[in-house]
Formats: sequence, C-alpha cells, structure tokens
Amino acid sequence: MTAPLRTAESTTASAALMHDLGLRARQAARVLALAPTAQKNEALAAMAQECRARRADILAANSQDLAEARASGAGAAFVDRLALDDKRIAGMAEALEVVRDLDDPVGAVMQSWTRPNGMSIERVRVPLGVIGIIYESRPNVTADAAALSLKSGNAAILRGGSESHRTNRAIHVALTAALARSTLPEAAIQLVPTRERAAVGMMLAGLDGTIDVIVPRGGKSLVARVQEEARVPVFAHLEGICHVYVDRSAKLAMAKAIVLNAKMRRTGVCGAAETLLVDVAAAQSHLAPLVTMLLDAGCEVRGDEAVRRVDARVKAAAEQDWSTEYLDAVISARVVEGLEAAIAHIERYGSHHTDAIVTEDAARAERFLREVDSAIVLHNASTQFADGGEFGFGAEIGIATGRFHARGPVGLEQLTSFKYRVRGSGQTRP
Amino acid sequence: MTAPLRTAESTTASAALMHDLGLRARQAARVLALAPTAQKNEALAAMAQECRARRADILAANSQDLAEARASGAGAAFVDRLALDDKRIAGMAEALEVVRDLDDPVGAVMQSWTRPNGMSIERVRVPLGVIGIIYESRPNVTADAAALSLKSGNAAILRGGSESHRTNRAIHVALTAALARSTLPEAAIQLVPTRERAAVGMMLAGLDGTIDVIVPRGGKSLVARVQEEARVPVFAHLEGICHVYVDRSAKLAMAKAIVLNAKMRRTGVCGAAETLLVDVAAAQSHLAPLVTMLLDAGCEVRGDEAVRRVDARVKAAAEQDWSTEYLDAVISARVVEGLEAAIAHIERYGSHHTDAIVTEDAARAERFLREVDSAIVLHNASTQFADGGEFGFGAEIGIATGRFHARGPVGLEQLTSFKYRVRGSGQTRP
Repeated sequence: MTAPLRTAESTTASAALMHDLGLRARQAARVLALAPTAQKNEALAAMAQECRARRADILAANSQDLAEARASGAGAAFVDRLALDDKRIAGMAEALEVVRDLDDPVGAVMQSWTRPNGMSIERVRVPLGVIGIIYESRPNVTADAAALSLKSGNAAILRGGSESHRTNRAIHVALTAALARSTLPEAAIQLVPTRERAAVGMMLAGLDGTIDVIVPRGGKSLVARVQEEARVPVFAHLEGICHVYVDRSAKLAMAKAIVLNAKMRRTGVCGAAETLLVDVAAAQSHLAPLVTMLLDAGCEVRGDEAVRRVDARVKAAAEQDWSTEYLDAVISARVVEGLEAAIAHIERYGSHHTDAIVTEDAARAERFLREVDSAIVLHNASTQFADGGEFGFGAEIGIATGRFHARGPVGLEQLTSFKYRVRGSGQTRP
Repeated sequence: MTAPLRTAESTTASAALMHDLGLRARQAARVLALAPTAQKNEALAAMAQECRARRADILAANSQDLAEARASGAGAAFVDRLALDDKRIAGMAEALEVVRDLDDPVGAVMQSWTRPNGMSIERVRVPLGVIGIIYESRPNVTADAAALSLKSGNAAILRGGSESHRTNRAIHVALTAALARSTLPEAAIQLVPTRERAAVGMMLAGLDGTIDVIVPRGGKSLVARVQEEARVPVFAHLEGICHVYVDRSAKLAMAKAIVLNAKMRRTGVCGAAETLLVDVAAAQSHLAPLVTMLLDAGCEVRGDEAVRRVDARVKAAAEQDWSTEYLDAVISARVVEGLEAAIAHIERYGSHHTDAIVTEDAARAERFLREVDSAIVLHNASTQFADGGEFGFGAEIGIATGRFHARGPVGLEQLTSFKYRVRGSGQTRP
C-alpha cells in the first residue's frame, strides 16, 4: 500500500507546485506585456553574459547528464544532441544577442484606418501571454525559447527532457541570475522543477488556464502526444513530408542543384525533401541524371517502375513510402502525369509543410504556388529554405503546419496577438 | 430493451450521416479555396434572388416554427428572434448582397519582401477550410454565416436551433438552389439534417478532422458548452462585461452622451456597457449627473456606497454585480481611486471584450489604451461600436475574445489563414 500512497502524495505535491508556477507565470506575463523594449533588451544582454560567465557550471552539469546518458546506453546521435562544449555555449550566448537585436513586435501598429465618423482605429500587436515549451534533449532550447518568449513580451514555462535536466537547470540558473539583475520578474522564465511525467499532462491541459499556447520541440512521438492531448493551442508540425516536383520545362542543371540540396544538405531537418516527383514529359531527359546523382551522393532511392528502370540500385517503393518522413539519406521518387498529378500526389500524401516546383514555365509555377495547400510553397528554390532565419525572421521557435494564428516559421511576430485601439472625440453609435 | 436499442441505432445512423457531411464539406472546401471571386459573387447574388423568390415558402415554414414555439409557451423575446416577415427576408437578401460586394480576402498579399539571395517571399491569404456554425433561434444566421463562409472561400456546416429547424431548412433550400445554378459545389453550404443533440458533440469534436473551426452564435450556455467541449479552435466570446471609465478630466457632456449610448442604445448586445467606473476626482462634479441620467432613462443602477448617496433609487451592488453581464437596462457603478484603480478593476472583473475611457487627458487615455487587456479599447467613444460593421469590416460572423488568430470582430479576413509563396531562380541553401 505504501507505493501508491507515495505516488498520490507526490502527484498532489507537484500539482500544487505546478499550479503556483502557472500563477507566477501569469503575473509575470502582465509585467512583461508592458515592459519597454530597452528593459527586455538589457535582460537579454545580461542573459548572454551570465551564460558565458557560468560556462564552467553549465559544462559540469552537462558532463553529469552525458555520463548518465552513456551509462544507460544512449546512441551517438542522442549523445551529440545533448552534448555542450565551449563553442556551443558561445553559440547559445550569441543567439541570445541575436534575439536582443531583433525588432520588438509588441506595440507595432499592424494596420490603421479612420472611419467616416472620425474615429481612428489601430490594430496593434500585444503578447500572447504565457508560452509552455516542452522539449527533448537539446539543452540550447532552454535559452533560445526563453529569449524568443521574453522579447515578444510573453512569460515562458519550460519543460526540458529529463535526460538533460541538470544542464537545463544550470542554464536556467544563468538566465534567472540575469533576470534578478534586471527590472523584469524572475518568473518571466520558469523551468518546471519536477521530472514527473504528470507535469507534462498538466501543461497540456493549460495549467489551470495559465498557459496560452504550447510549443513542442522534439521528435514525432512528443509532437504527436502534444497534438493529441493539448487543450490549448499548439504551434507545431508533426512531420515535414516535403516534395520537389521537376516539371517538363525545368532546366536540368537547376533541377539537379535544387533536388540535391533539398534532400542532402541536411537530411534530418523538417524542410528536407522526402519525395521527388518528375513530370512524365521530362522523364526521358531528366529522370536518369537526377536519380543517378542522388545515388552517387549516397542517397537511397525508392522508386516506382519507371524510376527503377533507370538504375539497378533503386529499390522498389511501397505504398507507405509516399507518406514516410525519412529524415535520412533516403528519398522516394516517382514519375507523374504532369502538374495536376503532382499537385494531387502532394495533396494526398504530403503534410502541408513545404513543397517546391522546378520549372521555367511561369504559368505552371503560379498554378503550383496557388493550388498546393502547404505552409510554404516554392518555385525554383530548395525546400531547405523552410526556416525562420532564412525567411528573415531572425530566429524561430519552430515551424507550424496548422492553419490557425501561426503557419510556417514561428518567429517573434507569430508569438503575438493584437488588439484594437479606437480613438474618438465623443462618438456615440446611432 | 427496445428504446435503448433504437437510440443506439439512430446514433450510429447519424454518425455515418455526419461523417459523410464532413467529407463532402472537405471536398467542397478544396474547390471553394480556388474559386475565382466572380464565381463566388455570382453564387451570392443568386442566393439573394432565391431567398426573395422563395419568400412564401420561407414564411410558411417560419409560421409552423412559430406556432410550435408559441404552443410550447415560448416567451415574447424568443418568438421575436424566431419570427420572419417580408421586411426581415428582404434584409436577409440585402445582407447577402452586402457580402457579395465586399473585397475578396483570398489571394490578397499581406506582406512581401525579397531576401539577400534574391528569393522573393509573399504571405498570401488562403481560406481556413471548413467552418462549423452552431446557432440558436435567429434563422437569418443561416444566410449570413453561409455568405461570409462562402465569400472567404470556406465550406460551411450549419447547425441551427431545433426551434427554427423548418425555417432554416427553407432558407437552406433557397441557398442550395442558388448553388445548383452556379458552378460551385452544393456542399459548400450544408445544413445538419438531424435534430439529434449528438450531432453538436460530433461537430465540437471536429467531425473526424473535417471541421477546422467552430463559431457559436447564441446565448451564454451555448457558447460555454462549445468552449468547454470543442477540440478544434473556436471564435467566440462568452460574455461582454464592458466598462466605461469616466476620468477626472472627462467633459461631463461627453461622458453623459457616451455612458447613455454605451448602456442604453441597445442593452442586449455584447458591446453594451455593464459597469460604470467614475474617477474619485471627478465624482463631485460628474457622478450625480451620470447616475441621475441613467435612472431617468429607465436604467436600474446598482452602486457602491458613494453611488448610493447620489440618489435613493440606486440599489446596493453585491460583489457579483461587478462580474455580471446584465444584457438589460441595469448597470453597476462605483467610484475608483483614479486610472490605475480603474484598470485594475477591469483586469479583475472584465471579460477582455470592450472597454472605454472618457477623458481630455491624452497621456491618461494612452495609458488606458495600452494597459487594458481587451480585444477593443476606446478613448472618447461608445463601447457599442464593438461591431464588425462599425469597424468597416462590412459584416462579421461574431466577436472573439480569445487571443489566437481572430480577436475582436470576426470578418472575412479573420476567416482566412495564409501561406508563404517563395519565388526563386535556382537558389539552394548554403
């Protein structure tokens, strides 16, 4: 009987603790919403300084996390995501300064107009409130997500992976030390102090109405759980099944450059291409060079009949390949009966993330850009540009494939809401 | 045993029927998203014609609904909301033509910029998809909501109140006849054909992923149920606890005009003022004239100590009055210790809908506009301007107090999402 009782007590304790965390975040959000830009920028500069000054503490915590991970048999990729060194800490501090230097979205006038009765109406950006960030192994998310939340006037509640809990705590100590030196509330950035999994469930339920939005950062199973269970809005994408369609009027050299970059520049990012579609009218001239290029670059190709005829190294694609996000040096490839078939394929198998057409035909390009229902559609450019930095947003907290509020790269502006300010001179409504 | 079995069968049948409805809406949404403006406008014009041409059918159905409502003892206000006559049908048809004449938001470029590598990026409006509208007695919502959905390129699934089901059906027959004459799919506007309450639950669950957003139109209990149960985004406000704060530097004449209009122009709308806050520094000169004016206009006043001393007709306000939306000729009133106290009162008791300050002091006005966290904040203008038409949106499907996607009046633009179109010349990512 002892074990269940202890669990119940512990859950009650963490529920109370999480409830307080939410209330503190809500109070901090009220202060942050009205904080002048200079005040937020000073805090961000101090955060960068403290991360640099506390480098040794952060590395010590990280080496403990790494030792535990290795002892429990974690793979090399996992250990690499978790590991910090001087260079990575310097990068983290620089990222804080990049966010400091971005324009403050809060208070920006998005639109303004005057009504016939003389009232002027402005639509101005205001923060969202409290952002809950649930992430896995990369500890730099602690600083990155906190900085984006703070600059956009939002309070952050961070729940990192338990495998990096010591590192996250050390980074959070540095951030909090900077806040203590500033005039902003320390509760602007809170780290969930319990490793209990129940804490995640409480966050997904909105933490008694105190969390306004959840941003998951991590693998597909984390995102799937968040999308399934969250009772508050979520900014996320479950997967990036991105396509490159090589049209009949594509230049071969450009198609080769874009396909190679879209697939192979980095295979583990959500904007990496997973499927190559080649117009049947371009197949004779373009298919073999594209497929051979990919194979020679070390990419496994899984193709339909036509693609398999090109090279013996091509494997047969199964139906499920068309809806698989490999995140690896693997691509599915097929020949399609022209533009319309390409669009239909993307509609059926894609994930509404990022898709590209390569063509010299402007009308066909415009039709693709119009009809493909994805957050990002590109003409003659690589899908790997699906990134807030590449869009000029300065930094991003993630990429969203939902249709509400934020879609595509989620930068500072997407972390805001708006309100209407109306200025009159005594107007009453007839 | 028979009754439960029948219920189970019937629920299964309506689940299948609702599932099909959702799939048809999703298919229609795909066509609507790409429909040219002229095609949508022709359909809207035809809808107005059919409503006029089928006036007799609609009135006949309405008189049956009215007879049933009267027989079941419905009150006068309820019957008035339900009742149609020639003038109301003409108004409904005109409203369809108003929406036809509004600018089409779909395809509008919201922002565009060029990256250093020469890629141009555009953020363009696209429809949301499928909108579920759940409404109560007013049958004109059938036409209004359908028109706004269609013009913004969205498919609509309408679930009207069961007390107006014959009228809604007759209006829907008219709309569908117009769609049949057009080149748009008839499933662009579907009316849920079952009166079973389970259908609402299915819609709130997202109808197997086919509904993208729910808009409730009706009383507080409907909105509360929708906000509580919906697993998809909701555009709504639960209540409008709107304040007018009369500052120390308010002109009395202006304050009187705004307070009277804000409270009494129409007491049943969400933008009607429910609480009057008077700055203690203005109380001696302004309080008595304001309170007397309201009482003389037939408004019940529930006040704090200071307000009660003004006039014997003032009743004592209880704590719950400050958070009550009367939607009637009743107002709560209190004296506050200046601007900061007014803002604190609104933060504590308000519903983040619409709040106004009356003052001649620009700095104090700006502070109110900045610090009051409501969808609409006004300076020297009546809260009754909280309306899409008054904002110049042409028409609205409702007012939202959430912070996501839509806030304030929800017009055509708020019924859209966006996507990014990127045009390159062979760019790959370094």
